Amino acid sequence: MKNLIIRAKEIVTADSVNTIYKDHCVRIQENKITDILPFNISLTTAPNTEFIDASDKTLIPGFVQTHIHLCQTLFRGLADDVQLLDWLQLYIFPYENAHDKNSLRTSARLGINELLLGGTTTLLDMGTLNHQEVIFEELANSGIRAFAGKCMIDINTLFPSFKADTQNELSTTYELAKEFHGYNNGMIHYGFAPRFVLSCSEKLLKETKSMMQDFPKSLFHTHSSENKDEIRVVREMHNKDNIEYFDHINVLDDHTVLAHCIHLNENEIRLMKKNNSRVSHCPSSNLKLASGYANIPRYLKENISVSLGADGAPCNNQLNIFTEMRLASLIQKPFHGPEIMDAITVFRLATIDGAKALHIDDQVGSIEVGKKADLLLLDLNKPTLPLNRNDISLYSTIVYSGDKTIVDSVMVNGEWKVRNGNSVLYSQSELQAQGKEELDKLLKRAVG
Amino acid sequence: MKNLIIRAKEIVTADSVNTIYKDHCVRIQENKITDILPFNISLTTAPNTEFIDASDKTLIPGFVQTHIHLCQTLFRGLADDVQLLDWLQLYIFPYENAHDKNSLRTSARLGINELLLGGTTTLLDMGTLNHQEVIFEELANSGIRAFAGKCMIDINTLFPSFKADTQNELSTTYELAKEFHGYNNGMIHYGFAPRFVLSCSEKLLKETKSMMQDFPKSLFHTHSSENKDEIRVVREMHNKDNIEYFDHINVLDDHTVLAHCIHLNENEIRLMKKNNSRVSHCPSSNLKLASGYANIPRYLKENISVSLGADGAPCNNQLNIFTEMRLASLIQKPFHGPEIMDAITVFRLATIDGAKALHIDDQVGSIEVGKKADLLLLDLNKPTLPLNRNDISLYSTIVYSGDKTIVDSVMVNGEWKVRNGNSVLYSQSELQAQGKEELDKLLKRAVG
Repeated sequence: MKNLIIRAKEIVTADSVNTIYKDHCVRIQENKITDILPFNISLTTAPNTEFIDASDKTLIPGFVQTHIHLCQTLFRGLADDVQLLDWLQLYIFPYENAHDKNSLRTSARLGINELLLGGTTTLLDMGTLNHQEVIFEELANSGIRAFAGKCMIDINTLFPSFKADTQNELSTTYELAKEFHGYNNGMIHYGFAPRFVLSCSEKLLKETKSMMQDFPKSLFHTHSSENKDEIRVVREMHNKDNIEYFDHINVLDDHTVLAHCIHLNENEIRLMKKNNSRVSHCPSSNLKLASGYANIPRYLKENISVSLGADGAPCNNQLNIFTEMRLASLIQKPFHGPEIMDAITVFRLATIDGAKALHIDDQVGSIEVGKKADLLLLDLNKPTLPLNRNDISLYSTIVYSGDKTIVDSVMVNGEWKVRNGNSVLYSQSELQAQGKEELDKLLKRAVG
Repeated sequence: MKNLIIRAKEIVTADSVNTIYKDHCVRIQENKITDILPFNISLTTAPNTEFIDASDKTLIPGFVQTHIHLCQTLFRGLADDVQLLDWLQLYIFPYENAHDKNSLRTSARLGINELLLGGTTTLLDMGTLNHQEVIFEELANSGIRAFAGKCMIDINTLFPSFKADTQNELSTTYELAKEFHGYNNGMIHYGFAPRFVLSCSEKLLKETKSMMQDFPKSLFHTHSSENKDEIRVVREMHNKDNIEYFDHINVLDDHTVLAHCIHLNENEIRLMKKNNSRVSHCPSSNLKLASGYANIPRYLKENISVSLGADGAPCNNQLNIFTEMRLASLIQKPFHGPEIMDAITVFRLATIDGAKALHIDDQVGSIEVGKKADLLLLDLNKPTLPLNRNDISLYSTIVYSGDKTIVDSVMVNGEWKVRNGNSVLYSQSELQAQGKEELDKLLKRAVG
């Protein structure tokens, strides 16, 4: 079996004790890390071995984003500086509803391209109502690691044509899960995706949850407690807040990932903890939609799982983990002091804690022997970055000074997806041209 | 006289009615914009004319940053996740104090390089206690437009060796102002820079202000109301809050630029307005040092001048106007709603409002006939940016999706400083090597 040896200046492992190796190599066989060993000249010439000398670069685990809407990438810049309900009613729902397979395929590609170029190697996607198989196909074509699922909506007062019959939603979802859970040699798993309380009947939520027993290691992925108006209406309908309602209908457990969780009452924090459910924190989105500041330090103190996501392009307007890491740290400091959400904590949220949230930390999220080779090479040799780095400031270099321009190479499951800052998969100009064309057609369909 | 004609896809002028020209050209003679006219093939072949076809790019005014510490660029990543007083006492004051001419020169170059690459063409710098002439020399060597001045400190309880005698501060400052106010053909002006209330005697502040009458168009630049501890001590010493104290000793007028202004009481807001003094808002710095969220929408409502600055590299850790624009917008929305600090408002803060703050809006800050050619060409042809842009989403493309990677070319006063994303002035690898070397020596001096 062929070996790949990568030598790096530093290896930032994100293992349980935050080991940093200096001038070490990782050995990769097929898609797995089999060794981490000090550099030795004999490694470069070993038989049946490809040697990559990245001795001026920094090797880190691939980033994990736990809340993404690939289907919305095409809509970036079309819904800025507006209220959430307008945002959904006037823009996002009509646009998602106007997707055909081609536009959805292009939107997914645009999103995957951007995520990979920025060093994200695993994502949890919310999907969309129609043509969901296209998203699975594009995830598989790219080779990225993903959880995804058809977005389920059987109630929609904001935009009534964008929903489906409950039974139909359940059966379509079941068929998709049968086809795509474990797809692409296990790179893809199903993330059941009822959109949020206000767009789902109780029957839909409960039967989705019970469907999951046929698909071990699948996830239950939804939005919760994002917006004060949403919370008010949930309370009117169910006489409970979001998390209390989820708990009441028994959909809350350790395979539940809830995007946002900005406004939780004390009982809800207790329920999140009791059920070991996971918060996907999306700071750019939470600010841009004026949703609020989630009390992430409190959740971390309660040992509630927190990981990061860029959400969708129209509410961000980037899909960049560096932006989310920096923001996740900085916005908390005026509330909790400058030491809170330090660089190392935030780096872990974006790597190993993301993997834990998805129950794949036995496979990815850190650089350890036996794990899959989801790896990034960072180029930190720039005069715009810290010039004297110790083991602590290495994290701050990535979290506070870093941006997508430091991502040199990206490997997913042993395969290069980005090299020297360029996508191995997509032509940027073709992708852009395709995007423009499909978006123009979609906008005509949306008003048509 | 030679003409330069630049054809652009769009010209975002930031003029008083936010005109956007499509497929127009600007004509530049020497350092001035002499015409803005529709593209015509005859322009490309006119005699004595250099024609630049940027018909796939977007021309915008150069950015203006109104609070920068060039002397600190070298200290990036050395003081993260710590309290402000520790930050000053244990890191920033000792490091600034350890500067020699070579380290200061390198620090200034690193900062100017980063600012130019990111599209900043005018800055207001705070300077440092010693060797200030080096900063002026490097500003002049680069050709950037700047206000700068020796940082004045005659009281320092945190780090007593980092100060000078009052009379000495005043006379050194006067000599520097004589030499450098109007330096480099008027590209550089003096910005008198007493550090902040706690490091300045009343005599120093008052005599600095009165010195300004010998230097028309100079500025008074200091920090104010950044941190609650600072405010408490100011109140103990002077029985007043910062702005009230400044007003009391008559240093507040329309040529006063105050960095931060996070915690102003109602009377201080009234005084800022009455004196037409200027707020330099530094969102990254305010968050990272846990200083607080300045109520910028309130200041704007009161017609108080607000502009943007990245502050210093160790409290940011970038010097990037795109980061500051996005943050300046996003952080306000949870407090004031999603419409507040929309993309166009923030774009103006970073361009024409910055020029107004410095009283140079007759020269720069917008693209208008008669103004100096401080211009950027942006490359917005990327699949990670909005694909269907109208005149509104053009601003959101820059403010929300933009980053330094979209800056293709930068012109200051008619001269290119950046072309095709590359510095015309500095070798990045040399700058980095020089930076490492000087920083290593400085750190030895600091502990020595």
